[in-house]
Amino acid sequence: MTENTVGAYENLEQRFRRWSALRDAAGMLHWDMSAMMPAGGHSARGEQLAALGVVSHQLLTEPRTGELLEAATGQANGLDPWQRANLHEMRRAHVHATALSSDLVEALSKASTTCEGVWRQARPAGDFGMVKPHLEAIVRLVREAAQAKSEKLGLPPYEALMDEYEPGNRTAHIDAIFDDYAAFLPEFLGAVLERQAKETPPIQPKGPFPVEQQKALGERVMQTIGFDFAHGRLDTSLHPFCGGVPDDVRITTRYSEDDVASALMGIIHETGHAMYERGLPQNWRMQPVGSARGMALHESQSLLVEMQAARSAAFCAFLSPMLKETFPGNDAAFAPENLVRLYSRVKPGFIRVDADEVTYPAHVILRYRLEQALIAGDLQVADIPAAWNELMQKLLGIVPPSDREGCLQDIHWFDGAIGYFPCYSLGAMTAAQLYAAACKANPDIPAAIARGDFAPLMAWLRPNVHERGSSMTTQEIVTAATGGPLDVGVFKTHLQRRYLPA
Amino acid sequence: MTENTVGAYENLEQRFRRWSALRDAAGMLHWDMSAMMPAGGHSARGEQLAALGVVSHQLLTEPRTGELLEAATGQANGLDPWQRANLHEMRRAHVHATALSSDLVEALSKASTTCEGVWRQARPAGDFGMVKPHLEAIVRLVREAAQAKSEKLGLPPYEALMDEYEPGNRTAHIDAIFDDYAAFLPEFLGAVLERQAKETPPIQPKGPFPVEQQKALGERVMQTIGFDFAHGRLDTSLHPFCGGVPDDVRITTRYSEDDVASALMGIIHETGHAMYERGLPQNWRMQPVGSARGMALHESQSLLVEMQAARSAAFCAFLSPMLKETFPGNDAAFAPENLVRLYSRVKPGFIRVDADEVTYPAHVILRYRLEQALIAGDLQVADIPAAWNELMQKLLGIVPPSDREGCLQDIHWFDGAIGYFPCYSLGAMTAAQLYAAACKANPDIPAAIARGDFAPLMAWLRPNVHERGSSMTTQEIVTAATGGPLDVGVFKTHLQRRYLPA
Repeated sequence: MTENTVGAYENLEQRFRRWSALRDAAGMLHWDMSAMMPAGGHSARGEQLAALGVVSHQLLTEPRTGELLEAATGQANGLDPWQRANLHEMRRAHVHATALSSDLVEALSKASTTCEGVWRQARPAGDFGMVKPHLEAIVRLVREAAQAKSEKLGLPPYEALMDEYEPGNRTAHIDAIFDDYAAFLPEFLGAVLERQAKETPPIQPKGPFPVEQQKALGERVMQTIGFDFAHGRLDTSLHPFCGGVPDDVRITTRYSEDDVASALMGIIHETGHAMYERGLPQNWRMQPVGSARGMALHESQSLLVEMQAARSAAFCAFLSPMLKETFPGNDAAFAPENLVRLYSRVKPGFIRVDADEVTYPAHVILRYRLEQALIAGDLQVADIPAAWNELMQKLLGIVPPSDREGCLQDIHWFDGAIGYFPCYSLGAMTAAQLYAAACKANPDIPAAIARGDFAPLMAWLRPNVHERGSSMTTQEIVTAATGGPLDVGVFKTHLQRRYLPA
Repeated sequence: MTENTVGAYENLEQRFRRWSALRDAAGMLHWDMSAMMPAGGHSARGEQLAALGVVSHQLLTEPRTGELLEAATGQANGLDPWQRANLHEMRRAHVHATALSSDLVEALSKASTTCEGVWRQARPAGDFGMVKPHLEAIVRLVREAAQAKSEKLGLPPYEALMDEYEPGNRTAHIDAIFDDYAAFLPEFLGAVLERQAKETPPIQPKGPFPVEQQKALGERVMQTIGFDFAHGRLDTSLHPFCGGVPDDVRITTRYSEDDVASALMGIIHETGHAMYERGLPQNWRMQPVGSARGMALHESQSLLVEMQAARSAAFCAFLSPMLKETFPGNDAAFAPENLVRLYSRVKPGFIRVDADEVTYPAHVILRYRLEQALIAGDLQVADIPAAWNELMQKLLGIVPPSDREGCLQDIHWFDGAIGYFPCYSLGAMTAAQLYAAACKANPDIPAAIARGDFAPLMAWLRPNVHERGSSMTTQEIVTAATGGPLDVGVFKTHLQRRYLPA
């Protein structure tokens, strides 16, 4: 069929199928770069990824795509609801791609590469001054991008940035949730710390825990959760992540011989991401509407499996004999009650990625407030370290000894990603709400998890989250699944029950 | 810089850089498909590779590329010799890509996929009739393609097909070489078999040989040859191959616990390919002139390292203590003299890929003659089995018991690849000639190999073969390196010395 004999919408489906295939190819090469590639392959890989970026961007922004989108929108009455939603997501991708001039895209890409490179030296040295001019360049360019997207999307600049990661996210909504949590945290945290101080500390398991056996255990747990190894792999990388495509999901973790929980919980977390990808609507593979809804919902799926399901007493009961069998000689440490206490230890710290689920939102709130101020022009890059430490003191009552444990710890800003941070905590809160709704719909879920049976949980998540794809907004998905919009109260109730049980 | 402010040649370099990057991306995904991908990823990977095929083909065939090639050719006086050679190779790629209509490309691709699928069932069943109509479709389409390329390249149809794999290959040249070898073979083979029958058979090493240790040994040998693991990997796949890109070479092998030579010689063979890729001219990465010259020269590099260097008495002396150390209890089998005899055993058989270096060319000559006749229309597909068996009887004096061990054994024709086979034996003969020239230029090479030092050999191969890239024809490279064109006499002398020493 030539372009003229098919309708505009069908033509767009073909174009976006190719666009997705090119992005999927890039995704696979990213996975390889992290999990397989020898160091000397870096420069060639950069060329491959850049070429893929250019051709997929061209496909999306070429005038013909815009014309077809206009034509298809004029004929949208003839489309079914999924097709209409697909067309909507196509337009969204097109708007984001065309909002920025190619000069700006290139400048941002180069500035990010440079700044990230300098940051890799500045962080271990705790030298913010070293990276400051580069971060200033990034903030200048991201402000420009935010302004351009703002005009195109009709959103305030910061929201226009967020929209790329989590469409539909609005600051009024997030402010209310985060302010609520920031107000709740000090007293709650104090009570939890007081309670845990009174208890005997949990017994730490004694290693070494050989990597081979950790991996074998991880794979058993992945299978328990429902990961299908005919459609995915587990490998090792410096920074754990979930990559690949829905029918070929590649998750990674990193192992420490001293600590069995770190890799295992990482694997479980990434398996949650993988189950989401794998469960996306089969009929809409490689179409925008068949993609994951956004980063907050994605994070909700990893945190639901890790924080809600796997750190529960039910799962600890299931895990205990597997741990004892795999790593003999730690029976007391691997007793179910001790696992529960190990996996729910709360301790305020400086580093976000090491934070427990109670204090984690404080790390996110801090970054959210600072990045908003940066984009608004209310905070200058030079003032970040002082503002960081002040807010850390206010939220968690601690001040990092150096910028290494402070404003230099995360890659995001130095890599040009501003507007992403809220997703982490929105994900954690959404996870609590979805898990509560799942258990309400099927009260057998926790008992099934205690037997190592995740099928009832997945049977609820599939139609209520995974198979929705991007056919609805995040808020619509959460409301349809749980009976109401995101409610921080459900998360607080979860924390209350887990950390301050009666 | 915009397109108008740079010269046509510079613009072409940018285009071909992107084109190479897209093809390299596809190459990496092919490697992943063979070495890493779970079975369920097949369909998604097909989409990714098809999209990459389409966009790279578009880049090559779009009218602007043709205009730039014309403009640059008009200004070629201002180019240096490497740039002129690069422009020549760009034109070659463009001519091959534009010679076939996109309808024919698509029809060939579909027919090959179908035929290959049926062949996978027909081969184990030994049922030529099952795959016959599909092979007929392929031969019809390949004849059409050969005709189209013939017109565009000004070559006879079969040579136009060969030109894609081995530019500059001419049948008159190959006929002379192959006829010579076919005449030489019967008497020589008889003498070798008679001699080996009189000797005590070599002692077979007794396994099992654990895969882990085979792999570790393989990696040691790769390092010995000069493989740089900062720029490459060794993995496992069903069919061993060398993939990736020059700065990130991915070789694969397969292991049998009963047989240590099979994987080891496979690794050494692929390492030869890898050394060629890695040694291609650094300043011409991602340009056509920086690519490997052709499949015959590529095969010469793998066979030089495997057949000439690694199966020599010198290398067996070096390998012997490594084998004894890695797999204790086989000291007699791993004695240097026994290894030499094991690695140079001659036995006529039905299967090409299992053939020794003496009988291998007979397998190739057979296929070469049949595929020429197929393209010329002198042989019908229905008559292949009879023609195959008749020629097998004539060349090696044996007749396969069924088509499974006969005309169904190789994937090439059933996958649409006609014109490739001669490369294997031209490679073997070129390897002998290059190795002889290397040892003449530096007589220390064999002694160095006996010490596990491949540096002198590589020091000769780099400037004389690897770093030439595609700046000269194969014939020019061979002549410049060895003092004359390919001469089957050198190969025969090598065989004489190895198999019938005085």
